[in-house]
Amino acid sequence: MIAALTVDARDGSARVGRLRLARGEVRTPLFMPVATRGTVRALPSHELADLRSPGGEGFEILLANTYHLMLRPGADVVQQLGGLGRFSGWNGPTLTDSGGFQVFSLDPRVTADGAEFSSSYDGSKVLLTPELAVSTQEQIGADVQMVLDVCPALPARPERLRWAVDTTEAWGRRAIAARRRIEDQSMFGIVQGGVDPDLRREAAERTLALGFDGYAIGGLSVGESRSEMLPAIEAVVGVLPADRPRYLMGVGDPVSMVEAVALGVDMFDCVLPTRLARHGTLLTSGGRLNISRAEFAREPGPIESECACSTCAHYERGFLRHLANVDAQSAAALFTVHNLWWMLSFVGRIRSAIVDGTLLDLRRSVARTWGP
Amino acid sequence: MIAALTVDARDGSARVGRLRLARGEVRTPLFMPVATRGTVRALPSHELADLRSPGGEGFEILLANTYHLMLRPGADVVQQLGGLGRFSGWNGPTLTDSGGFQVFSLDPRVTADGAEFSSSYDGSKVLLTPELAVSTQEQIGADVQMVLDVCPALPARPERLRWAVDTTEAWGRRAIAARRRIEDQSMFGIVQGGVDPDLRREAAERTLALGFDGYAIGGLSVGESRSEMLPAIEAVVGVLPADRPRYLMGVGDPVSMVEAVALGVDMFDCVLPTRLARHGTLLTSGGRLNISRAEFAREPGPIESECACSTCAHYERGFLRHLANVDAQSAAALFTVHNLWWMLSFVGRIRSAIVDGTLLDLRRSVARTWGP
Repeated sequence: MIAALTVDARDGSARVGRLRLARGEVRTPLFMPVATRGTVRALPSHELADLRSPGGEGFEILLANTYHLMLRPGADVVQQLGGLGRFSGWNGPTLTDSGGFQVFSLDPRVTADGAEFSSSYDGSKVLLTPELAVSTQEQIGADVQMVLDVCPALPARPERLRWAVDTTEAWGRRAIAARRRIEDQSMFGIVQGGVDPDLRREAAERTLALGFDGYAIGGLSVGESRSEMLPAIEAVVGVLPADRPRYLMGVGDPVSMVEAVALGVDMFDCVLPTRLARHGTLLTSGGRLNISRAEFAREPGPIESECACSTCAHYERGFLRHLANVDAQSAAALFTVHNLWWMLSFVGRIRSAIVDGTLLDLRRSVARTWGP
Repeated sequence: MIAALTVDARDGSARVGRLRLARGEVRTPLFMPVATRGTVRALPSHELADLRSPGGEGFEILLANTYHLMLRPGADVVQQLGGLGRFSGWNGPTLTDSGGFQVFSLDPRVTADGAEFSSSYDGSKVLLTPELAVSTQEQIGADVQMVLDVCPALPARPERLRWAVDTTEAWGRRAIAARRRIEDQSMFGIVQGGVDPDLRREAAERTLALGFDGYAIGGLSVGESRSEMLPAIEAVVGVLPADRPRYLMGVGDPVSMVEAVALGVDMFDCVLPTRLARHGTLLTSGGRLNISRAEFAREPGPIESECACSTCAHYERGFLRHLANVDAQSAAALFTVHNLWWMLSFVGRIRSAIVDGTLLDLRRSVARTWGP
């Protein structure tokens, strides 16, 4: 189904809107926590659903990884148990990636047909084709499925970037032809093209010509600098229609997010807040804070006094430092709650700034705290 | 302070009561979850506090391990950060063991003075004396502190059991002399004596003569059979006063609990429900269930349909089996909630049976499900 975006407010190219998906409407700009195997690591879905920002907003959509779910427990199992939402105990909208990103990290044998890789679970050979990515994601049954694309690491030679664009286009056409679940699942195309604005623009036009329900910008945050990334995003957004969502894949650092929003991006996902949490690194208004450091051993008070997350409501720095050292499980859960709450609150600030017309002030403030 | 027990109902020797401690009153019989390092592994304290049985009862007291807290983060750190309750985010009553049980598992050099062991954290030599156990527990600041005792593994030769009783008595006398925190902390003595009812009776009398705020039965569930354990408990309970709590240390299997309650025991602690949870073994009305087995891969429905815990409310068997295989952290949290909820509900059934005068029926029913 078409993922229609209703824009409610603008500040320059940035927009606040509502995106209609099969299982409900989600507010944009938005950040999707990564629920790799159907659930955010260390944080059960019903607890994620309870997270609320100061403005009362929660996460409205999760991303799950097709690669992992197709191998464990198998897409047919997810389907048999009611599809991703019911299966994982998350009742809101969901999105699955195509599996391509993980597969390309496994050094697959790529042909025009697809990408052949060895399963990281049991070593078995699997050929992931555009058609298999579609049928697998239709079994998993998220609200949004992504097409299989070719995502080269950067820097890459121009021929390789052009080949990625060509192959991604051909695979996108095959994905559309293979698609059966039209009524209750949206399909997003992916624009490749490295950091060359001209190639990005061309790739965006060719992706648009195929006709998807929404559009993603892939192949960024894979080794390039931010000053290379932003012009590539700008080139793509300039081509995409205003009434469809724009999803910048795999990006979740504060500066890149707020800059991409300023260029007109609506959706983000990133493992960073949850991965950092599992390593004891906390997001705060002053930047990152590693709670396992000895200096925090005897410190009273919460991680941040202005934070309203349940971790900051119940625990003090000294105890959290102790937990980080002796109980990785509880620590991961508590830190994941804090970091995701920080992301919620950050996204809330972005939305408010757009509505208030003060996004430029927010960009400057974020750059001061989180910039190089 | 004296841990006074008010008995509200009896069924034979079993009793339902209320135990007054510094931070509040707790209902008995009771089960203490083991919060080894200040918190139950995989389950943050504020979530533990939210657990409620069908009758609306929650856990009212936690046990923490002095051995672990004295080495990490250090008892002085716990004290500086407000004592165990404030430190760990658990605002209810707490009890600390003396550290002896862990120390005796490390094969210490035991003299009349104390037990010298190598820290399992950094190998440093530590001499744990009765006086150090007292001062450490006074720094940690639980509602109840336990005396340092000698806890031999069973079977043990009679001379060794008598030596344990003699030494435990001498250390108990020194603990009382060393005690400074009288007003807001109770001190429990520990009765040793192996499985010899005569030695147990003598040890109980000698412990009682020292005069503690409450009494524990130690040195059981350390290798003996249940038919050896129960007469030893009966011998001790026969000596102890009715208005003080009786705490059977380290026991938490359903049959032993209900049988010990029938003999007049009020308090239990055990790592089993939480340790089993971390290994995917769930407590149910039909006995233990290992959720990671392949047969559960495609099973819909909760662990138990009659269970009202949040895990059973939100997740189905197939998904939980998947989690057990791919996400140990979330699985441990969800299974710990279920198993502790089961224990709460079990303790609630014991209390109701005593009030209703049907404890014998409950003992038979528990023996059928959980017996050999």
